[in-house]
Amino acid sequence: MILGQEPILLTPGPLTTSPATRQAMLRDWGSWDAQFNRITASLCRDLVDIVHGGDEYVCVPLQGSGTFSVEAAIGTLTPRNARILVPDNGAYCQRILKICRYLGRDAVALPIPEDQAASAAAIDEALSRDPSITHVAQVHLETGAGVLNPLADIARVCQKHGKGLIVDAMSSFGAVEIDVRSMPFDALIAASGKCLEGVPGMGFVIAKKTVLEASGGNSHSLAMDLHDQYTYMQKTTQWRFTPPTHVVAALRAAVDQFLAEGGQPVRGGRYQKNCRALVDGMASLGFRPFLEAEVQAPVIVTFHAPTDSKYDFKAFYAAVRERGYILYPGKLTQIETFRVGCIGAIDDNEMRNVVTAISQALASLGIRQVAPLTRAA
Amino acid sequence: MILGQEPILLTPGPLTTSPATRQAMLRDWGSWDAQFNRITASLCRDLVDIVHGGDEYVCVPLQGSGTFSVEAAIGTLTPRNARILVPDNGAYCQRILKICRYLGRDAVALPIPEDQAASAAAIDEALSRDPSITHVAQVHLETGAGVLNPLADIARVCQKHGKGLIVDAMSSFGAVEIDVRSMPFDALIAASGKCLEGVPGMGFVIAKKTVLEASGGNSHSLAMDLHDQYTYMQKTTQWRFTPPTHVVAALRAAVDQFLAEGGQPVRGGRYQKNCRALVDGMASLGFRPFLEAEVQAPVIVTFHAPTDSKYDFKAFYAAVRERGYILYPGKLTQIETFRVGCIGAIDDNEMRNVVTAISQALASLGIRQVAPLTRAA
Repeated sequence: MILGQEPILLTPGPLTTSPATRQAMLRDWGSWDAQFNRITASLCRDLVDIVHGGDEYVCVPLQGSGTFSVEAAIGTLTPRNARILVPDNGAYCQRILKICRYLGRDAVALPIPEDQAASAAAIDEALSRDPSITHVAQVHLETGAGVLNPLADIARVCQKHGKGLIVDAMSSFGAVEIDVRSMPFDALIAASGKCLEGVPGMGFVIAKKTVLEASGGNSHSLAMDLHDQYTYMQKTTQWRFTPPTHVVAALRAAVDQFLAEGGQPVRGGRYQKNCRALVDGMASLGFRPFLEAEVQAPVIVTFHAPTDSKYDFKAFYAAVRERGYILYPGKLTQIETFRVGCIGAIDDNEMRNVVTAISQALASLGIRQVAPLTRAA
Repeated sequence: MILGQEPILLTPGPLTTSPATRQAMLRDWGSWDAQFNRITASLCRDLVDIVHGGDEYVCVPLQGSGTFSVEAAIGTLTPRNARILVPDNGAYCQRILKICRYLGRDAVALPIPEDQAASAAAIDEALSRDPSITHVAQVHLETGAGVLNPLADIARVCQKHGKGLIVDAMSSFGAVEIDVRSMPFDALIAASGKCLEGVPGMGFVIAKKTVLEASGGNSHSLAMDLHDQYTYMQKTTQWRFTPPTHVVAALRAAVDQFLAEGGQPVRGGRYQKNCRALVDGMASLGFRPFLEAEVQAPVIVTFHAPTDSKYDFKAFYAAVRERGYILYPGKLTQIETFRVGCIGAIDDNEMRNVVTAISQALASLGIRQVAPLTRAA
């Protein structure tokens, strides 16, 4: 560690951003000023381009965390009498179910084990069985365990049945390929502080223009009414309510770096390399990932906690933190795990270094047994 | 102007912040990390202290702009069958009425001319006339024209009638005295990027603990459920959903500077001095404030636009901007005005300088007639 340097975040957003992104926050912007509004407009264009949205899709930015945008998308882009199928393999799927309950949207859960990807065939069957379903709300990359769900297959099934598809792409956007030409959706939601490597504070919804334009009057909330936000922005170029100006400027800088790096394929490739270095290094210490490799997204890896009776997450977290890295707790209810993010403005050297830090932390805590005895034998 | 320096914002939030506040955003924070959560906790304590809330009041921070927090407060802290009196002397009062419509809260407007303060006597009368009213939602400082409403008198009337009081103190918090011991309220809402001189991106609600604790199940929205946010924070010390970490860190730095400056009395005094320098300087150019001095808050001043036929706000704005200052458009529907903020990390020298810049801008645009002929005579 460089003395006085702050620890590196291996959390799935907020994450470690580049100095250039943070330095973009060193000036104040007027929210009425044309210069600032050109930043917003250029960001929206670039975000639509990342998914190849052409003229059929528009981007509506929204203040708040990603969850605010997910709620706004469901509240604005589905009618009040919608019936929404939610394939559920983790915490963020369950959050969508909770949002539906708050909003009075009729929701149908399709339960899937946390270590498995959603299946397009099961969704196909559910839609055939219950034609009253109007929409599917799909988490692309379920951050709870780190599972990548097969968006293209699911989008095709929705298209076949003529159902609207709302995609929570919070943890995948920018890192995993999303192409609306082969994966049509009504709306896709992501946020500033994830794989685009901006700072947290705003989300955005990439919506099919025809769906958005027909959505007036749906929203349960003034602040989260995407139709109103869009209409006002079209008219004035401004956000309706005070934008998080510094966060927007940082996202502009982050997207500039994203494009300069080579866009999604290169960013995704870097994260793949990070993920491989992490999983390989952790394996050499005896750690097992919770997921099989074929469903593991290169964004966040869930590891089984050490089986040693001396293990306690808080002490482990503190010992790794002292060595320069911030880990993330597990989010599974049944099994003790912890998570390590592979994303942010970091390379695979950093992932090898965190493995070293974890090894040192284990030694300092006297934790010897990492894997169950049967596997250690 | 220092060459290459960005223009100074004379807008009522976002505003010009100090370098120390912006530099607080140069590091990344983990949202699960204890160090970060201590920042949130200390901020909440300090914000409650600013209004002398003691143990009876708590502060719940919320992602998004101030309007998100206003909506959250109404949605969470009034029951669904509430009937809310909204004294209306401007755009932000009308925004509360709009929020009530979205939320299905029964709202009663009490119309007041835009250049006059709300009257406690009129509110008293309205509450006597209609006992079915359960709450009053009062904007403290109506930023539309810049009017300060008499909060202490209004709070006493609400207390007398046993009605809940929700205060939108967006533009007054930190600059104008608010003391809950003499102005009891159910909830008061403000935001990071106003007179506390932080950057925009979060709001907060200072709520009476008993009211907040009894508010479970009211909210129309998961993201804006203050009861849920509070309960989760009490249990975990964390925000429910990703906080705008850099904005929070900047607000911590800004509140440190606020306290070091001497708190509300000194900050309010600085703004008073700024306001006086501005109004006096503008008077020397022939500009008349829209408001009488007794209702003018020292936060934002609305001026009548020049009567000269050559005047056009956009050109005037651009000419002043070139000279280093960003003004704000008027928000009155009937009369052509523009606004100049007196707030932010600036002193009265800056206000004299903007007067000079405005004088130069007028000359460059060939605008000679500022006030109507009858007054110029």
